[in-house]
Amino acid sequence: MTAFSEQTPPQVPDMSGPASDAVPRSGGGDGDDAQYVIGVDFGTLSGRAVVVRVSDGAELGSAVHDFPNAVMDREIGVGPGAGSALPPDWALQVPGDYVDVLTHAVPAAVSAAGVAADRVIGIATDFTACTVLPTTADGTPLSELPEFADRPHAYVKLWKHHAAQGQADRINALAHERGEPWINRYGGLISSEWQFAKGLQILEEDPDVYAAMDHLVEAADWIVWRLCGTYVRNACCAGYKGIYQDGSHPSKDFLASLNPDFADFVTDKLEHRIGQLGDGAGRLTDEAAGWTGLPAGIVVAVGNVDAHVTAPAADACEPGQMTAIMGTSTCHVMTSEELAEVPGMCGVVDGGIVAGLWGYEAGQSGVGDIFGWFTSTAVPAAYERAADERGLSLHEYLTELAAGQQVGEHGLVALDWHSGNRSVLVDHELSGVVVGQTLATRPEETYRALLEATAFGTRTIVESFRGAGVPVTELVVAGGLLQNKLLMQIYADVTRLPLSTIVSSQGPALGSAIHAAVAAGAYPDVRTAASVMGGRTAEAYVPDDATAARYDALYAEYQTLHDYFGRPGDDNNQVMHRLRAIRRESTRSGAASAEVAG
Amino acid sequence: MTAFSEQTPPQVPDMSGPASDAVPRSGGGDGDDAQYVIGVDFGTLSGRAVVVRVSDGAELGSAVHDFPNAVMDREIGVGPGAGSALPPDWALQVPGDYVDVLTHAVPAAVSAAGVAADRVIGIATDFTACTVLPTTADGTPLSELPEFADRPHAYVKLWKHHAAQGQADRINALAHERGEPWINRYGGLISSEWQFAKGLQILEEDPDVYAAMDHLVEAADWIVWRLCGTYVRNACCAGYKGIYQDGSHPSKDFLASLNPDFADFVTDKLEHRIGQLGDGAGRLTDEAAGWTGLPAGIVVAVGNVDAHVTAPAADACEPGQMTAIMGTSTCHVMTSEELAEVPGMCGVVDGGIVAGLWGYEAGQSGVGDIFGWFTSTAVPAAYERAADERGLSLHEYLTELAAGQQVGEHGLVALDWHSGNRSVLVDHELSGVVVGQTLATRPEETYRALLEATAFGTRTIVESFRGAGVPVTELVVAGGLLQNKLLMQIYADVTRLPLSTIVSSQGPALGSAIHAAVAAGAYPDVRTAASVMGGRTAEAYVPDDATAARYDALYAEYQTLHDYFGRPGDDNNQVMHRLRAIRRESTRSGAASAEVAG
Repeated sequence: MTAFSEQTPPQVPDMSGPASDAVPRSGGGDGDDAQYVIGVDFGTLSGRAVVVRVSDGAELGSAVHDFPNAVMDREIGVGPGAGSALPPDWALQVPGDYVDVLTHAVPAAVSAAGVAADRVIGIATDFTACTVLPTTADGTPLSELPEFADRPHAYVKLWKHHAAQGQADRINALAHERGEPWINRYGGLISSEWQFAKGLQILEEDPDVYAAMDHLVEAADWIVWRLCGTYVRNACCAGYKGIYQDGSHPSKDFLASLNPDFADFVTDKLEHRIGQLGDGAGRLTDEAAGWTGLPAGIVVAVGNVDAHVTAPAADACEPGQMTAIMGTSTCHVMTSEELAEVPGMCGVVDGGIVAGLWGYEAGQSGVGDIFGWFTSTAVPAAYERAADERGLSLHEYLTELAAGQQVGEHGLVALDWHSGNRSVLVDHELSGVVVGQTLATRPEETYRALLEATAFGTRTIVESFRGAGVPVTELVVAGGLLQNKLLMQIYADVTRLPLSTIVSSQGPALGSAIHAAVAAGAYPDVRTAASVMGGRTAEAYVPDDATAARYDALYAEYQTLHDYFGRPGDDNNQVMHRLRAIRRESTRSGAASAEVAG
Repeated sequence: MTAFSEQTPPQVPDMSGPASDAVPRSGGGDGDDAQYVIGVDFGTLSGRAVVVRVSDGAELGSAVHDFPNAVMDREIGVGPGAGSALPPDWALQVPGDYVDVLTHAVPAAVSAAGVAADRVIGIATDFTACTVLPTTADGTPLSELPEFADRPHAYVKLWKHHAAQGQADRINALAHERGEPWINRYGGLISSEWQFAKGLQILEEDPDVYAAMDHLVEAADWIVWRLCGTYVRNACCAGYKGIYQDGSHPSKDFLASLNPDFADFVTDKLEHRIGQLGDGAGRLTDEAAGWTGLPAGIVVAVGNVDAHVTAPAADACEPGQMTAIMGTSTCHVMTSEELAEVPGMCGVVDGGIVAGLWGYEAGQSGVGDIFGWFTSTAVPAAYERAADERGLSLHEYLTELAAGQQVGEHGLVALDWHSGNRSVLVDHELSGVVVGQTLATRPEETYRALLEATAFGTRTIVESFRGAGVPVTELVVAGGLLQNKLLMQIYADVTRLPLSTIVSSQGPALGSAIHAAVAAGAYPDVRTAASVMGGRTAEAYVPDDATAARYDALYAEYQTLHDYFGRPGDDNNQVMHRLRAIRRESTRSGAASAEVAG
């Protein structure tokens, strides 16, 4: 009996309505003493603010603001440097665009919610990562200094800036050569997207910018710095993207071996106070109060990453609950009491999802992107017309046709590597495969095979976690793809896991709001707040045994092809790497011919 | 000097104009004594007659007649049996449709040519094969007897009737078990399309029809029988489709082991006089003269097969000249002085292409069919609109875009097995593969990869011949696909062979006409006639060394995948067979569910 009462949720101050685990979204009437928090989700192209009631997580109003300069991938598009061309694989942003979200979307969301601004008790943000910018000691972006406005390296490097692959390759090779223990916390490979690769690229390509920067700051932390005037590195970014493990970074000796001038990168440009997720970083400054219309002095939470805040939004912070944020790509996050080195994961970070637990991350580089590519490049006009006539999108039409098939009826198996493979192979030179097409194969059949391939990709990740002693007991889906019921049932059947779906349609922003509520002291910790403010529909899809058994046969074929094409080895086939090399060579020689011809 | 004059073409009687090896097609003025022959090509859906001048092969007029009943693959569509349903994989025709070609197309062609019918000195025909029908002793098709009009087995079984696979499997297994020497003349496997499989199917599924038939006749020979009143089995069909090797058929003992009631199939239903290609089978009957408007008594040549008559039409009968008839599928035919057992060929037959030489046949089950499938199912509306605006077909538009690429720029390699693999794997359960697609892959890139895959398929065949001691020195292309210049250059580069193209656009009909001229005594043999009446543009495409070297790298990848997916073995992957099995199982269980639901 005592045990039972200990397990009931802790009482939460200022609760004005009943908490519901399942569907907490419907707005109950607000009491006079209702309190609110703001969550702001910074995506790749826009920022979204949402106003959330602290007592039950009800989302009362939201607003979106597009980044005026979007993504700069061909030239600098702003200021005195406008028109400066960018090399291939670059992706930059303008930091002022993030402030615009604060000045536009936040007041608009408060207005849409119809709540009094003085009832807002905290604000929290989440961001794409690793998205980093060089700043001065006071946080001024170098790109805002006239002398650096035309220097590409002075701008924000967006997460998908992929021009530091050479640096990443060297970091990985050296880490394995030296047997650095931290490399296994990242499944054996760190990404060209991450902070050390991007920092080394700045040093080697624009030493002036490197010398002038006092900090290489995650945008997730920079926006918090702007809100509260205090620079705090969030534990999530520091761990997953900044190689911060067991209280330290890669050694000076390691860095010097990469490049003598990089030896002091950690001490000079990176190290700073670390903040735990759900803690406050500071108080809203008068300036930021002016931008947002919120009361000065309310708490500003430590920054966070979009995928990682979504687990609390789905009330899925407990060990064994793997949250898959399924959109153009899929990010898998899960907590555990245990530290394990899961082959092919993106990383494991102490407190990386919620304080006090190990946070695991894995991912699939292409999911919705693959379906989108197929739909826009490989489906004939007759299907477009038929979908139009039915008032369906092409995705909906293909899904409807595909749903009419038995498992295996298409005779196909595909590999979902059209955008490379993040987990568990960590190889972006891999590419897609479709086996089994005949003259009778119809577009909806290949489409279904691609849906299934991404489910097999998730199962591969789940099994890698299991094999490393980190069991997965529930698959919790967030993100736009959860609207595809066929896809969800396939994932349940293929993984043989009960599949829950997040209730909120703006998971990351709600997740940030939950962190704001915790930072404001409304809840003792994120797990508790998530159980009240977050929500998921449990067992929205459950595996069907007979169907799952049929998928086992197709998954066995997927595994064989996965290892044959994806794992290095004498018996396997590195054809995809060779095709990339042939492609690079042919493009080079083509360009050379063109030059000669010109 | 003497040697030189011995090498000049033999003088031909009745020549009225100069012979040209290169472009003999343009009509010179006819002298008063000009003579003509008729070639009639029976395809899958229609028959084409062409009037050809004996002296130079000029094609003076032609006409096409569609078979009224086309292909019956769902039900019998004619006569008292109309409406009788057919099982899956059946494909029947109505023999009267062939006679309709004689009565319609032949007179129309003569009229179009503007020549006097009494100047026609012979007629010859070619046919699809193995296309067979059961007849009485006088050649009456059983389907024309009222008592059999509703019996599917009484009709013509078209070449693509694929419902005798079970019988073919048993024939092959037994042949290997007993070590029958003839099986290696067919690359180790005889096809379900061929005469013994189809005959055994009749016996086992409709013993009444089997008992009533006096002959199981190739349509190629039946139409000749109709023209001249004499039944002669042509050496080509008898060898390639009727397992006639070294003067005999499979033994009575072998047949009895298949099925005791099949023991006398050869002696009772098959054996008959064999005619060599280019010989006369008889003289045009009064009845057939009435149908065609041609003079009674002119020579009717021994029957032949459409692919095989095309080699003479291209003047490509010499050893080393491989003629590829490239359409929906590709048929490769070549002569040699030598007998060899080429792994994976369709067959080798003494006099199977021209009398006095060994004739080799190989094939690719899907070529133009694959391009057609891709174009109709995997290219988006935007491409259709762009092609329309340019006034191009989708094939032309994709080809134009693909031609702008460097070799290997697409980063793809494909296997051309969407319709199975005829040579060299002889496995119709194989299916297509595309490796290397990314989110940036465009339709024209996959299209080009499929073009290249079929070229790699042809190279695989060429190398199999070479490896067996039958060198290929020239690739001669006939068929509709020769109009695609990109495709032709790819074939030259991939095979590193000089590529010639047939001059005539109606190769099979011209090839038949050449046989008519020989049968009429206008030329001493087919090779001589071909050198005058046939023609090809030699070295229309020649391999580019640098490009060929680049293709070598892609071909190496094709070979690896070819063996991995296509050859049985412990290190290889029989996934395609398993996918077929899964598909059959899923369709069966799906049908079962539907039954329960119904």
